[in-house]
Amino acid sequence: MTTLDTLAAPPLEPAPTRTPALIAALTAPKGFGDATLRDRRTDAIELLGGIPDAAVLPASELAEATARVLSRPGLPALQYSRTEGISPLREWIAEREGVSVDRIVVTNGGFHGLSLAIQSTLERGDLVAVDNPIFPLFLRGLELADASILPIRVGSDGLDIEHLRDELRAGARPAALYTVPDFHNPSQGTLPAEARRELVDLAEHYGFIVYADNPYRELWFGDAPESVDAFNSSDHVIHVNTFTKTLGPGLRLGWIVVPEPLRPAITALRSRQDSHSSTFVQAVVGELVTAEPTLFDSTLQRARRLYRGRAERLVAALEREAPGSFETVLPGGGLFLWPRLTDDAVDPDRLAADASAEGVEYQRGSFFPSGPGTDSDRHLRLAYGHIPEPQLDEAAARLGRALRRQLD
Amino acid sequence: MTTLDTLAAPPLEPAPTRTPALIAALTAPKGFGDATLRDRRTDAIELLGGIPDAAVLPASELAEATARVLSRPGLPALQYSRTEGISPLREWIAEREGVSVDRIVVTNGGFHGLSLAIQSTLERGDLVAVDNPIFPLFLRGLELADASILPIRVGSDGLDIEHLRDELRAGARPAALYTVPDFHNPSQGTLPAEARRELVDLAEHYGFIVYADNPYRELWFGDAPESVDAFNSSDHVIHVNTFTKTLGPGLRLGWIVVPEPLRPAITALRSRQDSHSSTFVQAVVGELVTAEPTLFDSTLQRARRLYRGRAERLVAALEREAPGSFETVLPGGGLFLWPRLTDDAVDPDRLAADASAEGVEYQRGSFFPSGPGTDSDRHLRLAYGHIPEPQLDEAAARLGRALRRQLD
Repeated sequence: MTTLDTLAAPPLEPAPTRTPALIAALTAPKGFGDATLRDRRTDAIELLGGIPDAAVLPASELAEATARVLSRPGLPALQYSRTEGISPLREWIAEREGVSVDRIVVTNGGFHGLSLAIQSTLERGDLVAVDNPIFPLFLRGLELADASILPIRVGSDGLDIEHLRDELRAGARPAALYTVPDFHNPSQGTLPAEARRELVDLAEHYGFIVYADNPYRELWFGDAPESVDAFNSSDHVIHVNTFTKTLGPGLRLGWIVVPEPLRPAITALRSRQDSHSSTFVQAVVGELVTAEPTLFDSTLQRARRLYRGRAERLVAALEREAPGSFETVLPGGGLFLWPRLTDDAVDPDRLAADASAEGVEYQRGSFFPSGPGTDSDRHLRLAYGHIPEPQLDEAAARLGRALRRQLD
Repeated sequence: MTTLDTLAAPPLEPAPTRTPALIAALTAPKGFGDATLRDRRTDAIELLGGIPDAAVLPASELAEATARVLSRPGLPALQYSRTEGISPLREWIAEREGVSVDRIVVTNGGFHGLSLAIQSTLERGDLVAVDNPIFPLFLRGLELADASILPIRVGSDGLDIEHLRDELRAGARPAALYTVPDFHNPSQGTLPAEARRELVDLAEHYGFIVYADNPYRELWFGDAPESVDAFNSSDHVIHVNTFTKTLGPGLRLGWIVVPEPLRPAITALRSRQDSHSSTFVQAVVGELVTAEPTLFDSTLQRARRLYRGRAERLVAALEREAPGSFETVLPGGGLFLWPRLTDDAVDPDRLAADASAEGVEYQRGSFFPSGPGTDSDRHLRLAYGHIPEPQLDEAAARLGRALRRQLD
């Protein structure tokens, strides 16, 4: 068991007034979060974040949908709406998730879904089982409940269910568990169908809530991803999704599939925080996905082709520019490559610094462990989604030069 | 001193999992909040909420601004952005408020600004001085901090500073104070310049934070409202505003002017809840208000004329349809009339029921006290902003008939 304190930066500077406990538990960014604050070369290639490419976002279709919703009598798109979200967007999401519409709560994006889950299901100081390695910003979200964490290994097939089972049998009693089941961030794996079922069985048996965080789910390259039925049919899962990676992070629009018994708490909380997600954004996206029923999937098809091509290009370029230096696995989907340094003599912090000097920025693997026992520090997280192929070649070349600064 | 418990409905139904303290403090809607849940006549005229009229929302201009921002290279409107908000919107707000841009945090509307203020400045169980009568949803927001309240009288000039001073001298030590300084909701008054200064002096002397909630500020009918300089120049005020009443509630877009020392706490909290307000909505509104610099003010001028005309029409109609039955004050701005029943023999609850049967819905005054000592139950809150003048006449006629059911 690791507490967040062992990972956390110093607390925020105190304000002149007294600082509430909620705020006192929030720490200043360090590591992953402040990588974007460094000085860098103006021509740096930034493989930092899981950012969708503007080329596959349906901009003109969004503008047209906006014009249509803003021409409707009474302008419902500019008025107050229900806390849970509006029609037809909510119905469209429910049908896609295969659940009743009552179980859909529209959010301001995936992270917002996680924060609502944290705030509505965790008591302050609770223990939460989490991916190890992990999407680090989730740990920052957990500060909202001043939670402690129980790191669970993540391997090439996602969360290690046997490790989780062992911890539970040994007496660990988490209130919740966080995992990214599809195209794991950062480590690429996907949780198999049987493991999803076992995870849900454990949650129901031991009485914890699974936060299944699925922002990359729609961005699959080969076969469609595993079913989410196990998640969507349990009272012990909050299934978190978003339009962030498919229609654009700037919309701030996502959804959670919530168990019926949790919905009153989540909507009561939501109605006291920001009332509801923008009716305007919901109306525009609802119009976009329903006016022309094939548009969303054809948008996704273009995106999948683009990202798959970029993933393949980056893998090939790394092997060309630094032969044998990286062990890579071609991603099955998503926006990240998680190559491992094969040579133990390479210092990964020096590599990141040299790469920055050569003009390529990425997230170093050491930002991602939630506890001991991983080889994350031997990895790099390379985000390729928004980088054109010639720049991926150049990024790999720069990375190769950075490596050779240590090895030659 | 009154605790929220004495006003509150029963707690939410428990979920099968344990309920965190944050959630346990949230109550089911009662009174003000569930008035919209009643069965009513299909031809009912609803004077319920402070809703802007679609006729004075700049719909086509918003559609055009959307088309422009979605044609920009790289689609910044669809990408992640800063927690505090984006340019040029944030700069435009800062200039209008007369503060440095660093002090503006863009929010998802006025209520969201209040919730951020509550969560970032209150310890659980704190005492908060509040308007009496009050905008009731603020009390629901206070449940986020499980706060107790100290009701302070509100008169025809807004918050009664002498009452507040007496309470402070007698030993009350609130952590914060909530008031609507301009065109008070529900009771119409505006806090004079001198009282604003005195309020801020008291806040600085006794060490509490003022939440100055100002959604109606721009909707003035005669002279421009009092200056907000006293609020915007103190480290003890969070000044809350929104585009809700001017460009539309459905945008979910507002802002807070925050004291520098509180900004780290507020942005740290915000970044863990929903990251930032929709870049898309911010970009569209930023484009709207900056591309044609006179557009926002000319939109406001049309809205002021419309609402002023409706306020005058409603006052005249009430006097015509129920001569002498209501004491009214022509509003100086905003969206509400707060007439007082002159005849003590009238039962206000029966009046509301009879009015509903006649086909007119409003918020009864008894929903608005935060404590004893008001005559709010003798008042009606009539929202006229979104009701065309012939319907205001008809609403007054129905209200007159409802009154005569008791008096004849």
